[in-house]
Amino acid sequence: MERTVVELIAAKRDGNVLAEAEIARLLGDFVAGGVADYQMAAFLMAVFFRGLDDAETVALTEAMLHSGSVLDLSAVPGLKVDKHSTGGVGDKVSICLAPMVAACGVPVPMVSGRGLGHTGGTLDKLEAIPGFRTDIPVGDFARIVGEVGACMIGQTKEIAPADKRIYALRDVTATVESIPLIVASILSKKLAEGIDGLVLDVKVGKGAFMKSEESARALADKLVRVGTRAGKKVVAVLTRMDAPLGRAVGNANETREALDVLHGRGPEDLVECTLVLGAEMLVLGGKAASVEDGTAKLRAAIADGSAVRVMEKMVAAQGGDAGVVADPAKLAVASEILEVKASRSGFVTGIDALAIGLTGVAMGAGRTRADQAVDPGVGVEIDRKPGEAVKSGDVVARLFVRDRASGEKLSERVAGAFEYGDAPPPSLPLVVGRITA
Amino acid sequence: MERTVVELIAAKRDGNVLAEAEIARLLGDFVAGGVADYQMAAFLMAVFFRGLDDAETVALTEAMLHSGSVLDLSAVPGLKVDKHSTGGVGDKVSICLAPMVAACGVPVPMVSGRGLGHTGGTLDKLEAIPGFRTDIPVGDFARIVGEVGACMIGQTKEIAPADKRIYALRDVTATVESIPLIVASILSKKLAEGIDGLVLDVKVGKGAFMKSEESARALADKLVRVGTRAGKKVVAVLTRMDAPLGRAVGNANETREALDVLHGRGPEDLVECTLVLGAEMLVLGGKAASVEDGTAKLRAAIADGSAVRVMEKMVAAQGGDAGVVADPAKLAVASEILEVKASRSGFVTGIDALAIGLTGVAMGAGRTRADQAVDPGVGVEIDRKPGEAVKSGDVVARLFVRDRASGEKLSERVAGAFEYGDAPPPSLPLVVGRITA
Repeated sequence: MERTVVELIAAKRDGNVLAEAEIARLLGDFVAGGVADYQMAAFLMAVFFRGLDDAETVALTEAMLHSGSVLDLSAVPGLKVDKHSTGGVGDKVSICLAPMVAACGVPVPMVSGRGLGHTGGTLDKLEAIPGFRTDIPVGDFARIVGEVGACMIGQTKEIAPADKRIYALRDVTATVESIPLIVASILSKKLAEGIDGLVLDVKVGKGAFMKSEESARALADKLVRVGTRAGKKVVAVLTRMDAPLGRAVGNANETREALDVLHGRGPEDLVECTLVLGAEMLVLGGKAASVEDGTAKLRAAIADGSAVRVMEKMVAAQGGDAGVVADPAKLAVASEILEVKASRSGFVTGIDALAIGLTGVAMGAGRTRADQAVDPGVGVEIDRKPGEAVKSGDVVARLFVRDRASGEKLSERVAGAFEYGDAPPPSLPLVVGRITA
Repeated sequence: MERTVVELIAAKRDGNVLAEAEIARLLGDFVAGGVADYQMAAFLMAVFFRGLDDAETVALTEAMLHSGSVLDLSAVPGLKVDKHSTGGVGDKVSICLAPMVAACGVPVPMVSGRGLGHTGGTLDKLEAIPGFRTDIPVGDFARIVGEVGACMIGQTKEIAPADKRIYALRDVTATVESIPLIVASILSKKLAEGIDGLVLDVKVGKGAFMKSEESARALADKLVRVGTRAGKKVVAVLTRMDAPLGRAVGNANETREALDVLHGRGPEDLVECTLVLGAEMLVLGGKAASVEDGTAKLRAAIADGSAVRVMEKMVAAQGGDAGVVADPAKLAVASEILEVKASRSGFVTGIDALAIGLTGVAMGAGRTRADQAVDPGVGVEIDRKPGEAVKSGDVVARLFVRDRASGEKLSERVAGAFEYGDAPPPSLPLVVGRITA
């Protein structure tokens, strides 16, 4: 006899493994209304404590995936590959990565999110481009991926609607921080894109969701195992997220910086992160023999202008002003500028990414609730990164704000995020680890 | 700054102790609608895993208690003492206990429940008495306790309404089996009676909620500690519940048996259980110097007829036919009788209380849903208790049913509940332990 909902919750609570069909039924009944929110909340909390094994996580992922529709990209030739990042401060990698990878022949169908909490969102950054639309109809999305090689849109209501409901419930029941639930949420959305391969950027550090290497590695391992069991080619890269990535934190300024990467003048850490992830994507997409080969091809796509050309086509195809690609300075930033100065001479030894991210939210560049609008023009520009020498009074950061008065408090917070020392900090590699199936 | 609901759930999830004011606020907001059912469900599951310390449990108990009103028994002189049992099969102790204790001078204001699952309910049993009403208005309840010494009613909507809502939620979210939640639920209702002392009968064994002595002892310890911290005199007695208590399982037949105790002709185990609990009540109520003294006084109340007289007054005061007290045979039982016979000669070594209880429910004596009615006349009579010798074909039990045909399956289940052996089983004491503050 089928176990009741209460029996399934009790079984998970007691540390038992549920059958894949039971997980599918639980999710299906939840979507259909036969399982109440309070029952799902109790189940999610039981999962927080007891976990889900790989088979259960695959079942949950697929149940959430099939609560909606999977985009049909069969008309686009080649292996489609996407990237997902667990989120960091100043992480605008997707915006330069997608055209670079597409320029090397691997189609990138990318469904992105908006900023929430201390991390920004790719959609908010892209929408700083005048006219750029992220709510492209599904048919046009497939066409643009085919014609241009890349298209970047927001989650539609067809994509894993069960995940949307479950995530909303997790958010208000303190069940967000569960590795199997995070894995199922990420993969159900990414698998809905109709991709063949996925590269995961699992951030680790002060500015990341996962603060410790151990927890980040556990998440990455599970993502790779479950994604592989779900039939995809999956690689995860662990990258450091203690200080913001690049120099820009905001929306328009982050898009500017991503465009700078395409022009070959991006900041070193951002370029490295983009190349590392892009090379993995080219390998998964069958367009590079090795990571080294992939890196070389991506560098060539910058040098020969082909990445810029893909970006111009993509912006135009999505209704945006393609002129900003050649001239990123056209992206308007707020005109009031507040300077943050070094409190002492020496070296910048650290910049607290979480503090910078939260200041960005307070400025209006991000949101604390999903229904808030963001101001594309406000943001923070980091002038001195960790390891750089400073003299007392040097400008270490600038805030672009609408209103000078309210900006004073914000610049104090940015100032407080900087740490100084007598010597440069040890230089740590960006890439902490790499996990493959 | 006050922590949000999500922060409180997360704190409990992470094993932290909440402030008493935080527990009170959580409950208050839940009752007022500011905390959703799904948030409370997640909190309850977190409590299942992390527990509540004594101070938290007191806070939860008092928040549930004060979600309703506390009965005012200040007009009744003396220390008021009640008894609560965690529930067993054939447990009709309350019905004989209350008049016996009241006859010895300790007022007993008793708010009881209905049967649910395999255990019966005192209210259902009492309502087998023609005319007996358990929905007495609060003012009359206090008056009857004062005039008669005992009154037995059902939970009113004024008594701990938050407990009612939380219990309903626990029931559908697999969070019933949590000691601090059980403790808060029991004590919030009992404290609402306006009592000074409480004796707890924590059942342990096959037919009890707590199957192991360890878990029963943990529950009893917590009940005593929390009840004491809440300002009451509390004693717990652990009693064995492997086989049904007494010989009757049902409603009318159980009330008959309880009345037999008052007349000095009750079955040995039922009499012992009643005396043990009653003696503790007399000690808490200041009417006995010791348990031995209390036991002697209770025996005297049976011998001199004073317990019967209290019962007659109580039944009359609650609208019932007091004539049944002198003549319990007036309580109608179903007329179709099915005999269950011993399958072999030897000794009865055990009777599975859970199986008998569930058969009672299947007969119509109990309920599986709170909105079901019970048939007062159906039930099981045990003719041979564990330790008694039998010859193959001897009647070991009788079923009182409405319909012979449907009774056949039931009598097979009762037959299956009997275990036989070549020697009597070791005689185990009824009382497993006693816990005081």
